[in-house]
Amino acid sequence: MNSNKTPFSSKVIWLTGLSGSGKSTIAQELAKALQDQGLPTYILDGDVLRTGLNQDLGFSEADRIENIRRTAQVARLMVDAGIIVIVALISPYIRDRQFARQLFTEGRFTEIYINTPIEVCIQRDPKGLYAKALTGEIKNFTGIDAPYEVPTKPELILDTQKHNAQELVDQILNYLSTTNT
Amino acid sequence: MNSNKTPFSSKVIWLTGLSGSGKSTIAQELAKALQDQGLPTYILDGDVLRTGLNQDLGFSEADRIENIRRTAQVARLMVDAGIIVIVALISPYIRDRQFARQLFTEGRFTEIYINTPIEVCIQRDPKGLYAKALTGEIKNFTGIDAPYEVPTKPELILDTQKHNAQELVDQILNYLSTTNT
Repeated sequence: MNSNKTPFSSKVIWLTGLSGSGKSTIAQELAKALQDQGLPTYILDGDVLRTGLNQDLGFSEADRIENIRRTAQVARLMVDAGIIVIVALISPYIRDRQFARQLFTEGRFTEIYINTPIEVCIQRDPKGLYAKALTGEIKNFTGIDAPYEVPTKPELILDTQKHNAQELVDQILNYLSTTNT
Repeated sequence: MNSNKTPFSSKVIWLTGLSGSGKSTIAQELAKALQDQGLPTYILDGDVLRTGLNQDLGFSEADRIENIRRTAQVARLMVDAGIIVIVALISPYIRDRQFARQLFTEGRFTEIYINTPIEVCIQRDPKGLYAKALTGEIKNFTGIDAPYEVPTKPELILDTQKHNAQELVDQILNYLSTTNT
């Protein structure tokens, strides 16, 4: 591990929230902002990981737990390699996010709750998944027939109703700059 | 992906060979040499991964296949993040190494066979595993009661009997410098 104090040391920024809440969009904008500063940054996006590392996993509770476990372990390897890792993953269960957190030393794990009401997510429905979940075509869908456990003590809560993506990214950057370890 | 031509672009250097053949030692020396050049380098060591990402896997054929699949997928993510990834993994089956190779574009995957005779590995036995495998205390041990399929067309074969680690690392660096993509 690099022990130099740099403006941003390697760490994981964990975005949790409902499907359609805006995690991927915020992750991409944040990655762009960090890369523009010359910082090695990489996004681990739940949807993308399901096409590779996690392609053997479904959406049962056990598979969701394993999905999050592997993602957290890969994030740990990448942080160890010196990268700022942005995780964009529904990660609906408190205990799984807690598992991820304890893999990292204090200050290296920032949990950010992308707070978008389910009604808004259903209205957006960018992938048409809520429509299928509401008719029962898709089972175990977070927020419909599977739980989403709202973070109780995240480092940051982003209100996607009041602010656009750029403003939310600025909030994240401000938070990181005041807490950099 | 970074499209700049750098002396070494991100890629995976895949070290395969028997337990005790010298993979981890060579990986560490190679990583040091690359890091000394300021290149972002990271080792994915099979033994280390079994304490984290792959801790749910055993040594059955199915678990070995899954072990290699995950390692290859993580290597792909890290290469995509701009890192030179050194994999040190017994990876005994040709088809699994072939699976790993096809995840990468031409020239981004370098397979290196660490060629150490099994008699020498048994004699070294740095972790005492061969002794246990020979008495049957450990089952499915590569080279004893599980196969090791020698690479038929690796990019490089390293002879650990004739050369020390530094000389072998120089051979790898020479190979990479002549084939850099």
